[in-house]
Amino acid sequence: MTHPLKTTDDILTKDAHLIQSFANLDALKQNDARTAIVGAEGIHVTDSEGNKLIDGIGGLWCVNVGHGRREIIDAITEQLNTLDYYSTFYNFTHPAAAALADKLASLAPGNLNRVYFGNSGSVANDSAIRMLHHYNNRLGRPNKKKILSRMGAYHGSTHLAMAMTTPGYSEEWDTAADGLVHHLMEPCAYHQAEPGMSDAEFLDVLVEDMEKAIHDIGAENIACFIAEPIMGAGGVLVAPDGYHKRMREITAANDIKYIADEVVTAFGRLGAMFASEDVFGMQPDIINTAKGLTSGYQPLSATIISDEIYDVISEPGAMFLHGMTYSGHPAAAAAGLANIEILEREDIPGQVQVTGKIFENALRGLGDLDIVGDVRGSHFMMGLEFIKDKSTKTAFDADDNVGGKVAKHAQDRGLIARALGNSLILSPTLILDADNIASIEAILRDSISATMDDLKA
Amino acid sequence: MTHPLKTTDDILTKDAHLIQSFANLDALKQNDARTAIVGAEGIHVTDSEGNKLIDGIGGLWCVNVGHGRREIIDAITEQLNTLDYYSTFYNFTHPAAAALADKLASLAPGNLNRVYFGNSGSVANDSAIRMLHHYNNRLGRPNKKKILSRMGAYHGSTHLAMAMTTPGYSEEWDTAADGLVHHLMEPCAYHQAEPGMSDAEFLDVLVEDMEKAIHDIGAENIACFIAEPIMGAGGVLVAPDGYHKRMREITAANDIKYIADEVVTAFGRLGAMFASEDVFGMQPDIINTAKGLTSGYQPLSATIISDEIYDVISEPGAMFLHGMTYSGHPAAAAAGLANIEILEREDIPGQVQVTGKIFENALRGLGDLDIVGDVRGSHFMMGLEFIKDKSTKTAFDADDNVGGKVAKHAQDRGLIARALGNSLILSPTLILDADNIASIEAILRDSISATMDDLKA
Repeated sequence: MTHPLKTTDDILTKDAHLIQSFANLDALKQNDARTAIVGAEGIHVTDSEGNKLIDGIGGLWCVNVGHGRREIIDAITEQLNTLDYYSTFYNFTHPAAAALADKLASLAPGNLNRVYFGNSGSVANDSAIRMLHHYNNRLGRPNKKKILSRMGAYHGSTHLAMAMTTPGYSEEWDTAADGLVHHLMEPCAYHQAEPGMSDAEFLDVLVEDMEKAIHDIGAENIACFIAEPIMGAGGVLVAPDGYHKRMREITAANDIKYIADEVVTAFGRLGAMFASEDVFGMQPDIINTAKGLTSGYQPLSATIISDEIYDVISEPGAMFLHGMTYSGHPAAAAAGLANIEILEREDIPGQVQVTGKIFENALRGLGDLDIVGDVRGSHFMMGLEFIKDKSTKTAFDADDNVGGKVAKHAQDRGLIARALGNSLILSPTLILDADNIASIEAILRDSISATMDDLKA
Repeated sequence: MTHPLKTTDDILTKDAHLIQSFANLDALKQNDARTAIVGAEGIHVTDSEGNKLIDGIGGLWCVNVGHGRREIIDAITEQLNTLDYYSTFYNFTHPAAAALADKLASLAPGNLNRVYFGNSGSVANDSAIRMLHHYNNRLGRPNKKKILSRMGAYHGSTHLAMAMTTPGYSEEWDTAADGLVHHLMEPCAYHQAEPGMSDAEFLDVLVEDMEKAIHDIGAENIACFIAEPIMGAGGVLVAPDGYHKRMREITAANDIKYIADEVVTAFGRLGAMFASEDVFGMQPDIINTAKGLTSGYQPLSATIISDEIYDVISEPGAMFLHGMTYSGHPAAAAAGLANIEILEREDIPGQVQVTGKIFENALRGLGDLDIVGDVRGSHFMMGLEFIKDKSTKTAFDADDNVGGKVAKHAQDRGLIARALGNSLILSPTLILDADNIASIEAILRDSISATMDDLKA
């Protein structure tokens, strides 16, 4: 090993040079604030102190098939031994990128048949907008460029991806493309619906908001609507039934492209390879994905576009002036192929339709606890929102960091969960069985109870 | 293998679903327009027709230590078998990311000691700007955000990275942050200097252009100057001697941060681990790198920032609201460590000081050919510019694509080179010996001669 770091202290001393993501860097200057993960197998990871922890966030919503799958590792090794790297620039290609593009075209709904690879969900989203702007330039519509996104959305960390993300994520940070993006209402009823409003009534409010935005901005100025099927890093926010189909109808009627940001939702997390059509009954113009595409074993993302868009940007006279060195990296493409082979052979999406529902129901059961205000999500993509007073719907202060307190108790009890302010997010590996799920439920119940005790103290 | 594509036809049929980078997609619809690379070893790659080709572009300016290095592949495999994936988000880290951050801090000049990892040079550049904007917000200077870049620059393919790139690269594409970026003069004397002007005089022109921009925009509105030590994808454009030191003095005097985009130049290509200090004698505030960092075996980039910047963005009250799932991916970090170990043990930067000069001189020798107008670059980063009439400096038409014609002849003769309009770029592996270099020189001489015959026909 080229990094023979044996002790926690060894690791954390060197780690002083690393900048963590989405972190309070000042707080992390304390060595004991950081957790070093040194190993992983199946549903578990191991920290540098020897603690075995259930990976309740699946790495980062990504280790769908579980850790330590030799098949994926062997595919990567074999690929590297054959062709370590070549680009897919200019006139070049290689077998792994070609085969994975073909596979994704066969899995993606309808006419989504053309694939541009990147190495992160952020880049997949950023690239999709670049392609659509080029598309509209080619069609002689240079003003049709604005983007409809939503409050509560998370679309990544490039300047443009962050401009599409909910504004709270860039407080004290700039986004460099604000004028380009309009944020529609957050579609989560728990936060936005008036008391007593039905789901159908709330959906009408959201539709009205969308229609007003199109009216005000002008469809002739709007390139696209971008939406996660279920919002992830915004707090697992679920839109009312029928939302995506309605939004798809409105965008289609206004010649606005629909981009489904399936960075989190694809490859089994909601019980389908892609959620757009199989779960939400609609076909977008572009699907962006990453994470579950390789189950995290390699950095890879894909922007999957329709034949209709491709035809315009590949017509004579057009130049595809876009490229990332590691687009379709051989090792990453090989990992994607091996990962999809596992998902298909073990029918993990089909399993998730059963086990994911058990997980969802187990977490919903925690709703009886005093500070659990809302349990949201679907299958293996779940969020708990903590609240000070359920009856009056009084929120905790942002500083209370109840999610952080629960996450700390959970980690002490053998479970990694993700804190997000006063919420907690679970996005585990998709291979949990009923016993694993019962363990997670028990740890969460204990951890929330312990937090309630802390808050009383 | 999960992609048992045996024949060229198998590969290219599936490849119809792949979108190539920086390509004329219409032209690629012809099957025989594409080359499928199926294997690689040392300085060579093999195409699907069995042709063994010298990889004259090092993958894409990246395979610095050569193809098929078992040591790197073993490190990746071993890492994946131990810890396939964990994030460096929130309070988490892992040994490989910590060790590589520490190693980069030790290699980077001066106080460049803090590392944020990404997975592409584009993202490294995009992230650096995000961090500097946050830095200036923290310092209460919300207007100090504009970016000085240069005509001829290439900084990547996110919206923001493309806005910093020379405008020709986004013709018919949008960049979404144009108002933020000012492009200074291209610093290449062959294109920009008046006839008879000395290097020193031309440098004065460039300095004047920089000072005028700072005067016009106002230093209080300028966050940074971003520059490749030698411009790569703009056509291997070399600034006059002393340019970077002078620019560093001016930026320092105006409290403007200097970002060195060392995506191409780091890790040996110019005979040093980083070119900024060792080759150009100056220390920037941020170095961005990628490519040679893993020699292309894994998608990885690094944004290496000064302690001074880090101290501001990690002070109490600051939040680092930025993150990419695969930041510091274990397999990518392990590849980086193994790659640097090879570079150090074999002293590849030291070798390049010798062999790179042989390469440079061999290419300069081609300047006697009628259509070779300029030979530019340094060590293993070289460009040839073809010209219709040397005496009058009459350029070929853009449509002449002389670079493409030479590249085609070279590939037929066993060498991959990169066409860029009427130029040709060479950025090979760094392990070429004198015989390899002589072979490349001979192929290029033949290929250029054959192209001259074509042009006469």
